[in-house]
Amino acid sequence: MSANLKQEQMIEKLIHFWTDNIPFNKLIGLTVSKFDCKTSEIRFAWQQQLVGNPLQKILHKGVTATALDFAGGVVVAANMIEQLEHKTAESIQQCLSCLGTIDLRTDYLLPGRGEEFITTAHIIRSGNKVAVARMELHNEKGDHIACGTATYLVG
Amino acid sequence: MSANLKQEQMIEKLIHFWTDNIPFNKLIGLTVSKFDCKTSEIRFAWQQQLVGNPLQKILHKGVTATALDFAGGVVVAANMIEQLEHKTAESIQQCLSCLGTIDLRTDYLLPGRGEEFITTAHIIRSGNKVAVARMELHNEKGDHIACGTATYLVG
Amino acid sequence: MSANLKQEQMIEKLIHFWTDNIPFNKLIGLTVSKFDCKTSEIRFAWQQQLVGNPLQKILHKGVTATALDFAGGVVVAANMIEQLEHKTAESIQQCLSCLGTIDLRTDYLLPGRGEEFITTAHIIRSGNKVAVARMELHNEKGDHIACGTATYLVG
Amino acid sequence: MSANLKQEQMIEKLIHFWTDNIPFNKLIGLTVSKFDCKTSEIRFAWQQQLVGNPLQKILHKGVTATALDFAGGVVVAANMIEQLEHKTAESIQQCLSCLGTIDLRTDYLLPGRGEEFITTAHIIRSGNKVAVARMELHNEKGDHIACGTATYLVG
Repeated sequence: MSANLKQEQMIEKLIHFWTDNIPFNKLIGLTVSKFDCKTSEIRFAWQQQLVGNPLQKILHKGVTATALDFAGGVVVAANMIEQLEHKTAESIQQCLSCLGTIDLRTDYLLPGRGEEFITTAHIIRSGNKVAVARMELHNEKGDHIACGTATYLVG
Repeated sequence: MSANLKQEQMIEKLIHFWTDNIPFNKLIGLTVSKFDCKTSEIRFAWQQQLVGNPLQKILHKGVTATALDFAGGVVVAANMIEQLEHKTAESIQQCLSCLGTIDLRTDYLLPGRGEEFITTAHIIRSGNKVAVARMELHNEKGDHIACGTATYLVG
Repeated sequence: MSANLKQEQMIEKLIHFWTDNIPFNKLIGLTVSKFDCKTSEIRFAWQQQLVGNPLQKILHKGVTATALDFAGGVVVAANMIEQLEHKTAESIQQCLSCLGTIDLRTDYLLPGRGEEFITTAHIIRSGNKVAVARMELHNEKGDHIACGTATYLVG
Repeated sequence: MSANLKQEQMIEKLIHFWTDNIPFNKLIGLTVSKFDCKTSEIRFAWQQQLVGNPLQKILHKGVTATALDFAGGVVVAANMIEQLEHKTAESIQQCLSCLGTIDLRTDYLLPGRGEEFITTAHIIRSGNKVAVARMELHNEKGDHIACGTATYLVG
């Protein structure tokens, strides 16, 4: 059996996987800036190609939904890994292969304007079959642009 | 005052605007294949850059949410325009500048696998302040991959 | 081991349980008028005590949510039972004890006016851990008053 | 024109209206324990007739949805009244007649057990056409039983 990964190794590998190996995250420029088994933080910069309303130069609503879903997925993943007895590369990969979004609600509160966007997520339900996360998206000025709730299959 | 646009001119202009002038729609490759004031249809092809799960090569959940939100927005926009007394370029542009997604729920039913994805939307509430649309995403084989409901500000 | 229940016995027992043994269903007057493993139908009559807006004499939004959640739960339950190898009273009871609503979205489309209300539900996702149902509420004239989507834990 | 109501008169009248004049609130026993234009608090006691799962003696999911929708409606109403220039009985009544729930998402986090239930709501979007509130339901021990988000028509 593979050895348990050290905490730092594991975090480094996960961040690498999420940021560099998921094509759509890379396209949008989503980066995992922090995470533990309770909360996560995802950042991305404003880019012209993320615009959904060309007259008002605001983020496409789909970009917001993508960031919220991803932030929720990261904290749920970290929560699942935390509960693994043996944290080997194989067991972590197997665990993550079970994770999937069941449903996502997004509430759009303010137009998506800003230079940088910070999405935070925290766990509100952690079970052995489903987990639920609550997410918020703010810009660099602290304007609360969107929030959401997502249910994930974890079993 | 500008003359009312002929039906074909108007449709052509709107499709051009939605497909070519909205950067994030262009990035994903969303195209409006049909619409009237009751229903809309959006199509996009599978691309490597839309992948959210690199092991299973399935669509990112955010791509699905983007397509659903856009399909709903198109049918709501067409519904708003239908109710305009004078359908000039100016009145249409003003009307569309009021349109915004308030909230969106997405349900993920099957993994996002396929070569082409077809999103359809229809209006389930049409008011003078808010409209609600119901959306479905299928692949080219007819698999029902996702559905959703969105509320839009239209007033 | 108990004998498998005959189809008619089982349906009779379930309808009795849902209609007579669930206090809040009884309070509202919800009755299961039809169900199989794909769809369900719940009915209830207008009553003064179900009013949420006394000036307009329309149903409380919570009554609508209750009926939608229950209709979805019934079809999901029937779907779970259908998949049981042995349909004994014990296995059915154990199966139903696992069923729980994870989340529910309700969309209110028209004011809740009418003499009788008919809620229908059908399954849109049927897995071994979660199921998703889609519901609609109409009055006796066929007005589409509300719809919704709910995710249930079934495992 | 009627005189503006004094703050205490207005609060007293509103609480009386919501608690005593809305039949379904009365049936469940919902009482408004606090509110201002930013937050609200609704309380209700466990009763046998509110049970949805007779084996486990837990609240019906519809009771939870009712309490969340009502708590959100109260804070949105208070927010609308706050913005009225003249706070007369007539203008308040007219204002409240425009208020309606557009959609509601409820997340069920823990079984609804307890002796008393406390629902709190706060405004997360306050516009002149729609408002959005975020709600939580706890029992008397502080267990977080459910949460939700609702969009209201206010214009």
